[in-house]
Amino acid sequence: MAQQINPPRGMRDFLPAEKARRERVLSSILATYRRHGFTRIETPVMEELSRLTGGLGGDNEKLAFRVLRRGLTPERIARAAETGDEAELADLGLRFDLTVPLARYYASHHAELPRVLRAIQAAPVWRAERPQKGRYRQFVQCDIDILGEPTILAELELITATSAALADLGLTGVTIRVNDRRILDAILADAGFTPADTPRALISIDKLDKIGSDGVLAELRDAGLAEPAARLGGFLERAEAIGTRPLNRAGIEEVLGGIRAPEAVDSLATLADALAAVGGVAGSVDDRDVPGRPVAASLVFDPTLVRGMGYYTGTIYEISHPASRSSIGGGGRYDGMIGRFLGTQVPAAGFSIGFERIIDLVDVDRDGVEGGLVLLADRHAAPERLIAIKAQALARTDHPRVDVVTEPKRVGRLLDEFAADGYTAFARVGADATDLSDLEVRPLG
Amino acid sequence: MAQQINPPRGMRDFLPAEKARRERVLSSILATYRRHGFTRIETPVMEELSRLTGGLGGDNEKLAFRVLRRGLTPERIARAAETGDEAELADLGLRFDLTVPLARYYASHHAELPRVLRAIQAAPVWRAERPQKGRYRQFVQCDIDILGEPTILAELELITATSAALADLGLTGVTIRVNDRRILDAILADAGFTPADTPRALISIDKLDKIGSDGVLAELRDAGLAEPAARLGGFLERAEAIGTRPLNRAGIEEVLGGIRAPEAVDSLATLADALAAVGGVAGSVDDRDVPGRPVAASLVFDPTLVRGMGYYTGTIYEISHPASRSSIGGGGRYDGMIGRFLGTQVPAAGFSIGFERIIDLVDVDRDGVEGGLVLLADRHAAPERLIAIKAQALARTDHPRVDVVTEPKRVGRLLDEFAADGYTAFARVGADATDLSDLEVRPLG
Repeated sequence: MAQQINPPRGMRDFLPAEKARRERVLSSILATYRRHGFTRIETPVMEELSRLTGGLGGDNEKLAFRVLRRGLTPERIARAAETGDEAELADLGLRFDLTVPLARYYASHHAELPRVLRAIQAAPVWRAERPQKGRYRQFVQCDIDILGEPTILAELELITATSAALADLGLTGVTIRVNDRRILDAILADAGFTPADTPRALISIDKLDKIGSDGVLAELRDAGLAEPAARLGGFLERAEAIGTRPLNRAGIEEVLGGIRAPEAVDSLATLADALAAVGGVAGSVDDRDVPGRPVAASLVFDPTLVRGMGYYTGTIYEISHPASRSSIGGGGRYDGMIGRFLGTQVPAAGFSIGFERIIDLVDVDRDGVEGGLVLLADRHAAPERLIAIKAQALARTDHPRVDVVTEPKRVGRLLDEFAADGYTAFARVGADATDLSDLEVRPLG
Repeated sequence: MAQQINPPRGMRDFLPAEKARRERVLSSILATYRRHGFTRIETPVMEELSRLTGGLGGDNEKLAFRVLRRGLTPERIARAAETGDEAELADLGLRFDLTVPLARYYASHHAELPRVLRAIQAAPVWRAERPQKGRYRQFVQCDIDILGEPTILAELELITATSAALADLGLTGVTIRVNDRRILDAILADAGFTPADTPRALISIDKLDKIGSDGVLAELRDAGLAEPAARLGGFLERAEAIGTRPLNRAGIEEVLGGIRAPEAVDSLATLADALAAVGGVAGSVDDRDVPGRPVAASLVFDPTLVRGMGYYTGTIYEISHPASRSSIGGGGRYDGMIGRFLGTQVPAAGFSIGFERIIDLVDVDRDGVEGGLVLLADRHAAPERLIAIKAQALARTDHPRVDVVTEPKRVGRLLDEFAADGYTAFARVGADATDLSDLEVRPLG
């Protein structure tokens, strides 16, 4: 007996029904994005390793799959063994997200791209993480990005399009939490963290929903930041007591108390006004004016939202859903990143839907092949006759599939199997049948 | 100035218009295949290197991109330097085709799959070839395969579906050349090649269209096979004199003369009859009965067709088109391959469309975003007002895109750029505008 054969660790095959389901969800998302003025682009799955791991990808850089150089010589391998220099062995890497490749793409093609690029990327990424439930080494990300728009107009479009995409999938009851990195900076400065301590503090605050405020403060005390941690504790306590506030100027100012971050607050307030002007984030362009349409998403201000990546410079946002413990999407503004590749600053903001997280939350109809005719052949029927009858059945009936099977003893079980796979009819083919019209085609199941 | 930034060697980015074109062609192919009863499946892009390079992939195995082991220790690198054993450094490889992964997939999931699996795979593959015009290191293959059908019924469906896919793309005038490996074996045996010499002879015959029959015979003479080569030369000369014959029993027998390969000839004759019964390979299921529909494909018998891969066991076929020097698709029966993974023989046949070759041959409409409103803002207009007006424009107009640009001196050139990108309207926003209804929206271009 052959041994069990599996795909590589942490990677998945998709059976026809699951693949159809994924395609259906993806098609819906893409259609919504296109209606909102976004267009697909594509980059290769590999990038130069030096660019991929140039510091923009944070911790994910360590998780990149490395690709062995072609034509590697024994001398070069020996040199790698001596120096430990990975660049001797690997020159390319598989992308771990779609943002670093997008920045490289924009730098390569900016002259040929529209002034404001509204890009869709829906494609797999790879991370060599320890496999666990819900974490895979190959998974699909579904991102939209707007490059070239410096104002909050970009966030307005990204949030509108993303919430419409979720609404069009029937996913209601989501909450979009919004913050701004400049507000986090102001909160930390107010608590007495120096700019040098800010990244350390953000790493701890990012874990707030996992370890709680006690855990955050303990971490910061352990890092020798006891004094500012105590003042941060005061802010967190107050914010928790106030609770969730909708995204608008009054809500933000109430939560922030005396902490001043005027540019960021103005920008979020403008965003909230503009979102109200486009009818909120209730749904798609097509039916945004339908009265009584259920509100798909609500926007709230969350001063403790961090989002891990170091490249964010302004607005940040994350989507939560009651049925999912982790966020089902997120993004933000990253104005500094493209300049790292291009040499010129280009404003940029993006929003990513966690495709693998929403795939199980949405209800989509089965999209497999439906219809099919099973021909149960007498074991004495000549093969050429069966082939002729099948050819006739393909030509003269509406069945997309026609299968010929020699009739077994337990025919009921066989027909049940076919019915379960979507076949809808069967017919017996006798030893002397020569034409489809000789057969009695009967419904299956 | 920043240096030129490109994707990795031999790999491509796709700009929005080209990506839209590719998606459109792919959607058309997939729709045709679905209508013919095929369903999509998916495997990860990586496979265990030992499986990927187990001998089934022929020369392509050498071209597989290897993936570095994670957590590679200096000891292991040193061992690789000493032993030259690649397995010390790399454990995974990127797939170089979709057939080897399909066989692995079937072996992993056969119990959950339908008795006859009609699989679509449309996905990228990677080969570390020397880049040259029309050859890429990442490219899309578009395959259909039928697993579990031992008779020529599989080839009937594959050829019908593939020619319909091409016809639905408007690609007429293609020729499908058909042969059978057993016929080649018979021709070579008749010429006096021993079974051991057959693979060597096939490699030479495979180059017939590049080096001509003189070149083939010279190669075989150089390989010490002068006597059978001379007799093969007689056959080739005769076949060339007869010329191309349609795929049917009379045509095949005329070309083969006295050479006997009864099973293969019967099977091809049955295939030809069945194809005639389904209306030829003229077009799609939907319009196969439309009189006067142009014939998209003609089938001919080509006794010199080899197709490189070693795994073919029966029928083989290849598509040529007058506008393409190399074949635009091909496939065949490979009954032995799945057994190599599963341990049990499973009959299999496939047909692959050369996606990268047909993409330039077909005419598809532009599928980019159409429509868009450019707001030309007075340089004294306040940002919040512009944002409010844009939000109104998104809510109250049909434009999927609304871009705000401070009006430059050379406004004509700017508007031309937007028009070229599909924008259809513009309006001037004065310093004191507060509402969309204040603006005069005018057509662009």
